[in-house]
Amino acid sequence: MQIQLIRNATLRINYAGKQFVIDPYLAAKHSLPSYTGASPNPLVELPVPAESVIAGAEMVVVSHLHSDHFDAEAARLLPKELEIYCQPGDEAEIAGKGFSNVKAVAEKLEWQGMRITCTEGQHGSGSVLADMGKVSGFVFEAEGEPTVYWVGDSIWYPAVAKTIERFKPDVIVTHSSGAMWGDSVLIVMNAAQTVEVCRAAPKSVVVATHMEALDHGTVSRKALRDYAEGQGVSAEQLLIPTDGVQFGGAKLTRRKLSFPHD
Amino acid sequence: MQIQLIRNATLRINYAGKQFVIDPYLAAKHSLPSYTGASPNPLVELPVPAESVIAGAEMVVVSHLHSDHFDAEAARLLPKELEIYCQPGDEAEIAGKGFSNVKAVAEKLEWQGMRITCTEGQHGSGSVLADMGKVSGFVFEAEGEPTVYWVGDSIWYPAVAKTIERFKPDVIVTHSSGAMWGDSVLIVMNAAQTVEVCRAAPKSVVVATHMEALDHGTVSRKALRDYAEGQGVSAEQLLIPTDGVQFGGAKLTRRKLSFPHD
Repeated sequence: MQIQLIRNATLRINYAGKQFVIDPYLAAKHSLPSYTGASPNPLVELPVPAESVIAGAEMVVVSHLHSDHFDAEAARLLPKELEIYCQPGDEAEIAGKGFSNVKAVAEKLEWQGMRITCTEGQHGSGSVLADMGKVSGFVFEAEGEPTVYWVGDSIWYPAVAKTIERFKPDVIVTHSSGAMWGDSVLIVMNAAQTVEVCRAAPKSVVVATHMEALDHGTVSRKALRDYAEGQGVSAEQLLIPTDGVQFGGAKLTRRKLSFPHD
Repeated sequence: MQIQLIRNATLRINYAGKQFVIDPYLAAKHSLPSYTGASPNPLVELPVPAESVIAGAEMVVVSHLHSDHFDAEAARLLPKELEIYCQPGDEAEIAGKGFSNVKAVAEKLEWQGMRITCTEGQHGSGSVLADMGKVSGFVFEAEGEPTVYWVGDSIWYPAVAKTIERFKPDVIVTHSSGAMWGDSVLIVMNAAQTVEVCRAAPKSVVVATHMEALDHGTVSRKALRDYAEGQGVSAEQLLIPTDGVQFGGAKLTRRKLSFPHD
């Protein structure tokens, strides 16, 4: 397995011999509106040309349809017959963008030798949930590969802990920008919640993404690293990749087979 | 017909001898989070006790499920067997709050002597639409009553003009707070768009609601009145009720039967 962080939540993944992309958000820097009034989005350019993000991709997984997870530029560039997997309820809207091969992961399914399971997410709390709508995460499993739990646009809440218990993932991908709704409600994980994930899964590698790309983020990569170090979470356990960096192998699998309940 | 503006988009309507409520948002002042960081919401108390907003209501219509249109307090207080009408796609979520009599208005339906038609809305523009989700408006028609077009959480765009042409409404209810997404994208009508509605329907009464209740509004009632007057729109055509005010009769029906294509 190899993961390349593109930007924001967009990852290019090589898994079980297949290439796929998650949450393609391919807009040019500052080409989309602000979420808070602070700056147009995204805050930074893609580290590689948009075309090369998707070149050769055999499949796409979309966690939900907010504008920073599947944008007009992605819809324009992706081949319309490409297989796209999404949470139940989002199929029609994606198909409406011209895609002919969209499937919801109702619970789980097999694709090209890997199992993909849809998991619960919670995009905020209280009354904000009605505004944010339904979100999901996904677990990827394959023979001989690390089990990967991509949490999606979710805060830390009991269902995430349960998914960790159920799948004992080798790798957990969190969205850790600390984005807020107004100034009062956290809608994805912040530094403290990301550290909670590390504590709940001490033998997993946690990869923090969705950082320093949008104007509603409140946690920088440096702030997350500093906080995690202060809490005793090692840089071996918590990876905070910069845009464009590719990694895999031992970095993602050091804890493989050593999970307590394996 | 009588309309009572409760607060925000919540109206109590007496129509064709029936009592119903639209977009019940019954939270106490400052009990819900901010949308922008400026202030908790709602900004003001209800003008009457929440219980009396819904007492005797025979039906509820919900334009969409954002937190300022159907809130937890409304879900708690409304009788669970009350008939609730909504846009297609929102039924399951409302039923999930314990309501046993929820129906989507797929296109139109008859209810107690009135016809209710679901109309298109657009809650912003560009990439923001993916974040705001689907919204609808509704048209109410009954023998001997003014035809009412409740636009819902929509900007002024061609489908609103088409709905006006199609139904020739006597009364048009707009959401005119000028709420913004970040500081760049309008997500409901502002003063200029409300005046566009008045111009597109010169023989209709336009009732501007959803004002001075939430922290993401940008247009006050006074600012809307001043702008409309400056544009030559009369106070007879454009009503800007304060919370709690009830009105009807000639105020809403003066143009009845005089629409050019009637």
